[in-house]
Amino acid sequence: MGGAAGHHLGRVLRVRVGSAVVAFDGAGCEAIGTVVALDDAGVWLELGPPAVAEAAGGPRLTLAPALLKGDKLADVVRMGTELGVTAFRPVVTRRCDARDLGPARRARLARIASEAARQSGRARVPELHDPVPLAALRWSGGAVVADPTAVAAWCDAPEVLGEDLTAVSGPEGGLTPDEVASLAALGARPVRLGPSVLRAETAPVAMAAAWRLAVDA
Amino acid sequence: MGGAAGHHLGRVLRVRVGSAVVAFDGAGCEAIGTVVALDDAGVWLELGPPAVAEAAGGPRLTLAPALLKGDKLADVVRMGTELGVTAFRPVVTRRCDARDLGPARRARLARIASEAARQSGRARVPELHDPVPLAALRWSGGAVVADPTAVAAWCDAPEVLGEDLTAVSGPEGGLTPDEVASLAALGARPVRLGPSVLRAETAPVAMAAAWRLAVDA
Repeated sequence: MGGAAGHHLGRVLRVRVGSAVVAFDGAGCEAIGTVVALDDAGVWLELGPPAVAEAAGGPRLTLAPALLKGDKLADVVRMGTELGVTAFRPVVTRRCDARDLGPARRARLARIASEAARQSGRARVPELHDPVPLAALRWSGGAVVADPTAVAAWCDAPEVLGEDLTAVSGPEGGLTPDEVASLAALGARPVRLGPSVLRAETAPVAMAAAWRLAVDA
Repeated sequence: MGGAAGHHLGRVLRVRVGSAVVAFDGAGCEAIGTVVALDDAGVWLELGPPAVAEAAGGPRLTLAPALLKGDKLADVVRMGTELGVTAFRPVVTRRCDARDLGPARRARLARIASEAARQSGRARVPELHDPVPLAALRWSGGAVVADPTAVAAWCDAPEVLGEDLTAVSGPEGGLTPDEVASLAALGARPVRLGPSVLRAETAPVAMAAAWRLAVDA
């Protein structure tokens, strides 16, 4: 095992020959292994039989944040992955500055998701979808949309305790009232996230945390 | 009004003469005002009578994260402030690399808290306390300590819905079992924050988000 994962094992965790490790394939399978050799190129493992580690049938949270600029989307992906988000579906909204995710930025986000999954002990790397216009977003199960003007609070929405939740949030400057109304017409419930206004990168992380800490019963 | 707040009004929010604004003093008072002049030095306001904006008697969350290195504590203060944290009490634990918060870093954290309070529309800037050794931490009300090995889940702990909560979390590498046991002996409840392991800067933010979204009924 070379690359970032090998570095993490050999240099950061300082494993030795004979150390027990858990290897995972990013799609929910993992295997117990033993380190049989280490050198500058990486770490060699002897692996036992693979097992399904993270049930595909557990509760699923899809975050659909607005396509944020710079490192803000990376922060959402990193913290969201730690918090057990199943999939990221960035949406392009009226007030988004960015309209597209270039290949380099997309590859970087995928790397961040993979590293965050490994560091947090998740066997399954979340799905990272290409951005879609907000009007094209569809979902199965329940959906909420973060809206500081909403009457319903997060904790009043029955959707947030369902098995399958999609949580939409806007860019800096927010979603427009029309955008919120369009999502509501499709069945998404507008919810406020506390009395203060959250930054565009904080809102999706807050929803992931509230979901994760509530469903872990 | 000059400095960062004036810049935020004049350049970021692009207010004009005649715009209505809300000014706050950082201690829970606010006043409605009107912009009477703008120039390069800042923004001049005419203010109405002050009113108490954020009741001191509302639910209180104190975050007691380990004293983290570099910008990690800044991220906790920024996102925690948006999420309504009342006070930050950094703690020095066995596995902390940092033992102290220098004056420059402390001033920077105070500035971040003040800016995050303004941007999120909070009239009250959270208290920022000097770091104390973990063994010296005391609290009133309920307390939880983030512990990936805990039997109780966050949502099973009755403390997290109380009026007054202190939430302790460890550094990279975690709290030691002895440290968790010492806090538990003082009445803090060890809780796990979902099935995966959160980074040291994600755990306090996750607790603040779960608290904020649950108490906003």
